[in-house]
Amino acid sequence: MLERFKVPKKDEVRVSHESLHEVIKAVFVKMGTSESDATEAADVLTMTDLRGVETHGVSNMLRAYINQYTSGQVNPRPEWKIERETPGTAVINADRGLGVVLGRRAMDIAIEKAKKVGFGVVTMNNGGHLGAVGHFSMHAAKQDMVGMCATAAGTGVLPTFAAEPRFGTNPISIAAPANDEAAFLFDAATSQIAGNKFTLARRVGSDLLPGWIADAAGNPIMEETPVPEGYGDLLPLGGTRENGSHKGYGLLMMVDILGGMLSGSVPGMFDSEYFESGYKHYFAAYNIDAFTDVGGFKNNMDQMLRTLRETRPAPGHDRVLYPGLPEHEEEQDRRANGVPLHTEVIEWFKGLENEMGVPALIRK
Amino acid sequence: MLERFKVPKKDEVRVSHESLHEVIKAVFVKMGTSESDATEAADVLTMTDLRGVETHGVSNMLRAYINQYTSGQVNPRPEWKIERETPGTAVINADRGLGVVLGRRAMDIAIEKAKKVGFGVVTMNNGGHLGAVGHFSMHAAKQDMVGMCATAAGTGVLPTFAAEPRFGTNPISIAAPANDEAAFLFDAATSQIAGNKFTLARRVGSDLLPGWIADAAGNPIMEETPVPEGYGDLLPLGGTRENGSHKGYGLLMMVDILGGMLSGSVPGMFDSEYFESGYKHYFAAYNIDAFTDVGGFKNNMDQMLRTLRETRPAPGHDRVLYPGLPEHEEEQDRRANGVPLHTEVIEWFKGLENEMGVPALIRK
Repeated sequence: MLERFKVPKKDEVRVSHESLHEVIKAVFVKMGTSESDATEAADVLTMTDLRGVETHGVSNMLRAYINQYTSGQVNPRPEWKIERETPGTAVINADRGLGVVLGRRAMDIAIEKAKKVGFGVVTMNNGGHLGAVGHFSMHAAKQDMVGMCATAAGTGVLPTFAAEPRFGTNPISIAAPANDEAAFLFDAATSQIAGNKFTLARRVGSDLLPGWIADAAGNPIMEETPVPEGYGDLLPLGGTRENGSHKGYGLLMMVDILGGMLSGSVPGMFDSEYFESGYKHYFAAYNIDAFTDVGGFKNNMDQMLRTLRETRPAPGHDRVLYPGLPEHEEEQDRRANGVPLHTEVIEWFKGLENEMGVPALIRK
Repeated sequence: MLERFKVPKKDEVRVSHESLHEVIKAVFVKMGTSESDATEAADVLTMTDLRGVETHGVSNMLRAYINQYTSGQVNPRPEWKIERETPGTAVINADRGLGVVLGRRAMDIAIEKAKKVGFGVVTMNNGGHLGAVGHFSMHAAKQDMVGMCATAAGTGVLPTFAAEPRFGTNPISIAAPANDEAAFLFDAATSQIAGNKFTLARRVGSDLLPGWIADAAGNPIMEETPVPEGYGDLLPLGGTRENGSHKGYGLLMMVDILGGMLSGSVPGMFDSEYFESGYKHYFAAYNIDAFTDVGGFKNNMDQMLRTLRETRPAPGHDRVLYPGLPEHEEEQDRRANGVPLHTEVIEWFKGLENEMGVPALIRK
């Protein structure tokens, strides 16, 4: 994550991740979920904050989930069911359950199918927010699979050349295991930035960079610009056509097709109101053993990741990273030294403590 | 394709696509392939030029293939075989056969598996160049599948922050069928531009745009710049870190993993010489019927594609396109009015006619 999105040192309070997990779980139980569903959600959110993916951790998402449970937009006791199934595929109707609660179970179905027929794909319609999609890809990677996950919903992103938004930020993730190196884990919006970056930037007082959003007429804004009211119209990955936004546009559509259309649902752009058709998710697991020797694969991953890490950096950079490496390092640091939360977020948690009677966060 | 890459009107000669197909087929037979393999290759290259994907049509690739057959780098009579197989997956050793010859057959295996278990994925190691990856995704879409195809090879693209290249241009494609609208077909390098764009730009005398390549030290070149000698070090999709190149970097790795590692091969970065481990390919077919009603899916595709096409454009643009639409329109035009080739390419074909005794191209 770029420095501009991080909590400034002066505003940060470090809390224990065990305490964070306990509080999140208590909040979900208060929202009416089962104990086990609350644990699922706490696992996802805590790991997301441990890995430094602050867009999708408690500071943005726990509040959103509370609002969605309170308003009735999501269902705390979803009776999800498989609507269509083949040996390698399944389509789940989530009954408006949150993805953070149901996602691991969907990926487990994909993994079981992959063990039998080499590859498993599970799509989910009528769902709620999934959290950080990388979490579920990583779940598959831990079982010697290549995991992929994506999610589609809403309309905040412009097609190339367009003045009207048509896509969600449609993130995609992929994870693959190694032996000694931190696992490969790529997780990114196919728009220029994730929607939650607006909230982070506003909280920490940063401007947006050139080529991230468009003005009201659809012109890409090519200088630094303050965070607009609400969410602003995001540009596809690439930014401008000359810089490859037609590729981001194609990837946005790919996620709408794999997650939305192949779950028997519709793209977010069909909704007359935001999220009317729900969030749509895609979970896939490739059983490495079906393709090649697992030990050899992981040795090759080690060698590839080490090669990347040891690649000579360009001027002005200390080293070359790879997707998953900084998040792995962040996790080690945060497990030892606590999860940094903005003082504004700490205050909000204190409010929860008073309102809901959930435990207090313990500082590290 | 940006205007800067197109053959200038003053330099263009239009030839009949039937004649182009005949000449390509004759060239492949002269290279020692079977009649049916020559037809496969002519199908791919002719359709690629009909769709206006000039990077991967005859002007660049037919020459390259002749060089590769002549040098012995590729095998005109490959004895390809399935090395590992499950109900949903297969790994093929291409025996150094060209992908343009074997790709359709690999996708057919994926399609047959998808009919049985909902999804089929075929990877191919030890291969030759695949041509335009979108061709094979489209082959699946024509059979009511969502098709995906990707290819990995070589080392011409820099990781984010790096001074040494580590990836091929690793293109990815996806296609999905509609009823009335032109099918969705996305096909793009996960680097800023395809490697063959260097050749096109050099031929038509265009400079490269800011953020496409780096200088020798690894600094992104942020102004227009002449095409460098050879191929230059390409930046990942996004260009700079601030503009999202870490996302292009993740996608580059995704293709190396899906195509290279899951074919039991290695990433191109392991090769001590260029393409030593061959090209590695990925073919996937999702049977739409396994996920949802095919008729409903195609109706939804029509509605999505029409919605995009009719979206209000930003200032300075006539209309909003979607991936596959301009290529479809180009195909209609070129079928009627011929395929435009640069006079330099026409001269080269005349040379072939003299050297090999293949038929002359017929002008349209």
